[in-house]
Amino acid sequence: MAENWKSSLRVVLVETRNPLNIGAAARAMANFGFTRLRVVKPYDVAFREARSAVGAAPLLEAAEEFSSVAEAVADCYLVAGTTSVGHRELQHPIRRLEYGARLVRQGLAKAPVALLFGSEKFGLSNDDLSHCNWLIRIPTVGQDLSMNLGQAVALCLYELARDPKAAAAQPDRIRRADAGENEQITLRLLEVLRESGYINPVTAASTEEKVRRLVRRLEVASRDVPVLLGMLRQILWKVKG
Amino acid sequence: MAENWKSSLRVVLVETRNPLNIGAAARAMANFGFTRLRVVKPYDVAFREARSAVGAAPLLEAAEEFSSVAEAVADCYLVAGTTSVGHRELQHPIRRLEYGARLVRQGLAKAPVALLFGSEKFGLSNDDLSHCNWLIRIPTVGQDLSMNLGQAVALCLYELARDPKAAAAQPDRIRRADAGENEQITLRLLEVLRESGYINPVTAASTEEKVRRLVRRLEVASRDVPVLLGMLRQILWKVKG
Repeated sequence: MAENWKSSLRVVLVETRNPLNIGAAARAMANFGFTRLRVVKPYDVAFREARSAVGAAPLLEAAEEFSSVAEAVADCYLVAGTTSVGHRELQHPIRRLEYGARLVRQGLAKAPVALLFGSEKFGLSNDDLSHCNWLIRIPTVGQDLSMNLGQAVALCLYELARDPKAAAAQPDRIRRADAGENEQITLRLLEVLRESGYINPVTAASTEEKVRRLVRRLEVASRDVPVLLGMLRQILWKVKG
Repeated sequence: MAENWKSSLRVVLVETRNPLNIGAAARAMANFGFTRLRVVKPYDVAFREARSAVGAAPLLEAAEEFSSVAEAVADCYLVAGTTSVGHRELQHPIRRLEYGARLVRQGLAKAPVALLFGSEKFGLSNDDLSHCNWLIRIPTVGQDLSMNLGQAVALCLYELARDPKAAAAQPDRIRRADAGENEQITLRLLEVLRESGYINPVTAASTEEKVRRLVRRLEVASRDVPVLLGMLRQILWKVKG
């Protein structure tokens, strides 16, 4: 799926009160590559102040303002509301974020989708909810403590942009020392240990094996090999002196 | 895995400047059921003001203060730093959040793990990073725009608490009308349409089929059936009158 599916998402903030939250929502959108912000009846001051928020200026500049939810979602074929509380007697199907985001992503491949966020204090009103096809629930543990608006937006966008394949084991980008490099370290360390009197001649062979295994267990990064060899060389010079 | 794995996580905020961010981090912890907050060299004022933040008071009350990262992570067997920017020449293995969180979760099943968040302005310093086993990268699209601290904490905790199984298709909790209920609606609607002169007697059979299919496509919820029947009954009374 091309990245331009993201331009089909409209993030709709309804009656947001706090400019910091509008700014935080816009910044999360920028962080995850979403561009279309819509605000419904924001407090004028809040919206003006948010426009000066750091890091998301172009996005806020392009934000569209509406006087009703109906107008703000008119071009969307799917409208998903969001909630983090579960105690309300909600009349809508509720989907956990993990699954709801999957449906939204599928929808975005075809047509515009609106993601609605209610005000900080009251969430989405029953009237707002009547415009929603269904609701996304952010899976918080308690029912009582609502989520911070900026965090809720960030979580929904993260889940939309999340790559399930990235959860699989990834090879480290850091190259480990190869057997030859590990052996160089081992030999130098053994020399230091011999010169220091650490190695008992009677059990030398067994000690050497132990040291060799220990060095392998360290999983030294390839680029750290010269540093370690330099340290050992210097120590050797000192213990021999 | 029992929920108490969450109590093995230490969320460590290093040199946080803004009390709102400490408060937002604490609130996200409460939202996702994590309890152990540690702060390293916070601005005194910020920390005091954050303690009065709404919704996370007990958690902030129990927060532990440290004067160095070394002390704050001393009891942890794994220390994961966090970053959302990628332009620094980082000396650590970097794991995307999806995968890094999996490793942290595995670690938490065994022993305490620290999750480190740097200051708003500079992130984790090279000195902070030297205490980390590896780094988690939040997969933002741009390299330039850092994440809001409270949002970064929320995203990491969400991913830790995320349930991959919840992404699978879920049956709706809302029961759909069964065939009998749909047929009741169909018959009543047909009666209204007949009385209204909508149905042409010549094509009545085909119209009836179309109406029957249309009603099924609506996927009426079972609890809406009485409401719809009531509406149709009233309309029928009116059109007959």
